[in-house]
Amino acid sequence: MTIRLYDLAAAEDDRRFSPYCWRVRLALAHKGLEVETVPWRFTEKDTIAFSGQGSVPVLVDGESVVHDSWAIADYLDETYPQRPLFACEQARAAGLFIKHWTEQVLQPAVLRVIVHDVLVHLHEKDKAYYRETRERRLGARIEDIAADRAANFERLDSALTILRSTLAANPYVGGGEPNFADHIVFGAFQWARVCSDIPLVELHDPVCEWRQRMLDAYDGLAAKAIACSA
Amino acid sequence: MTIRLYDLAAAEDDRRFSPYCWRVRLALAHKGLEVETVPWRFTEKDTIAFSGQGSVPVLVDGESVVHDSWAIADYLDETYPQRPLFACEQARAAGLFIKHWTEQVLQPAVLRVIVHDVLVHLHEKDKAYYRETRERRLGARIEDIAADRAANFERLDSALTILRSTLAANPYVGGGEPNFADHIVFGAFQWARVCSDIPLVELHDPVCEWRQRMLDAYDGLAAKAIACSA
Repeated sequence: MTIRLYDLAAAEDDRRFSPYCWRVRLALAHKGLEVETVPWRFTEKDTIAFSGQGSVPVLVDGESVVHDSWAIADYLDETYPQRPLFACEQARAAGLFIKHWTEQVLQPAVLRVIVHDVLVHLHEKDKAYYRETRERRLGARIEDIAADRAANFERLDSALTILRSTLAANPYVGGGEPNFADHIVFGAFQWARVCSDIPLVELHDPVCEWRQRMLDAYDGLAAKAIACSA
Repeated sequence: MTIRLYDLAAAEDDRRFSPYCWRVRLALAHKGLEVETVPWRFTEKDTIAFSGQGSVPVLVDGESVVHDSWAIADYLDETYPQRPLFACEQARAAGLFIKHWTEQVLQPAVLRVIVHDVLVHLHEKDKAYYRETRERRLGARIEDIAADRAANFERLDSALTILRSTLAANPYVGGGEPNFADHIVFGAFQWARVCSDIPLVELHDPVCEWRQRMLDAYDGLAAKAIACSA
């Protein structure tokens, strides 16, 4: 039975932009698992009510229903031990640190840069929900946040220094090969790429070169996705 | 032959405060290796000129001379494979990310809080060097930085959120047991503890509880050190 994944979609069914869902898409590809994705919008809470909560990713695998990208990764490593998402328990523990950094530092910095471009691409029925939740979270109007470009890029560049230093030493966050820490961090870049043509990093930046490696990984899964930038 | 470590000292030979040297002390204890430490001051560049540079830690093990805490950890894991500092290559790769976070975010935030307390404890011959290098790095007078307590604590607390989320899930940054990532992060807390009585975190904070576990680890190596706070 094929694994099913409820995956956040924009106006078009095929424009998939959630950084959290991309983590799972990459994790499934890492393990060589097939998946059937179901386009889902922010306001379709009823469709995933069976999962007991209102956000994607939601993974359905036979009788198992798992939500939250970190819990899904754990489920996949337990259920399908081939090509583990983390090679050892210590790597998983450190991956949790990188997850919190991604969610508390990187993604908020990326959001400010792309917040208006995401709005533009959303399905009409999601736009009011998105504006209300994001403006409450960020404490300002979406248009005003997007207009503050210099400050947004300064914040992003400051966040990226840690990633840049790390990727100057190794081709992947996980070392010689990508692991789930790469999927987590790259999710933020794919989110931006799918919705926005604003480049987050300059060419020849180690982060840009890693981003290209992640786009090409798994038979170009991320590179082939409908997107606004290369 | 006993391993020798050149270790930054304050006015008293026994007050050892470098966060980078503490990483190495803990790493040696982790492996059960004996060490003879040599007190060293910032301005004693000649004493460690044989290492080809001017900072500690410098580790001397027979014919081998290694400087830089990360390089020392690699050297120790290669030379003494027992009780590895990282359990797998992916854990080491993620440890590098945590090292860069510690050096680019955590330590600069801690420094602002304790910068004046460190000055007070230094050997007289180091005070001018310390003032000049730190004031240049921070772009302000030490006394003015220290006086900005509210801003310093806000910055520190913001830095600690990632660590706090991580330690809410696991007893150590390395997972169930401490690894070199714990030594790296804890070095910043021991640096503060040795020189300052300002508490960095509140009781019952997961970070505070982890800090206590690290103080108690390795037969209380860090707890037994001369310090200004519990």
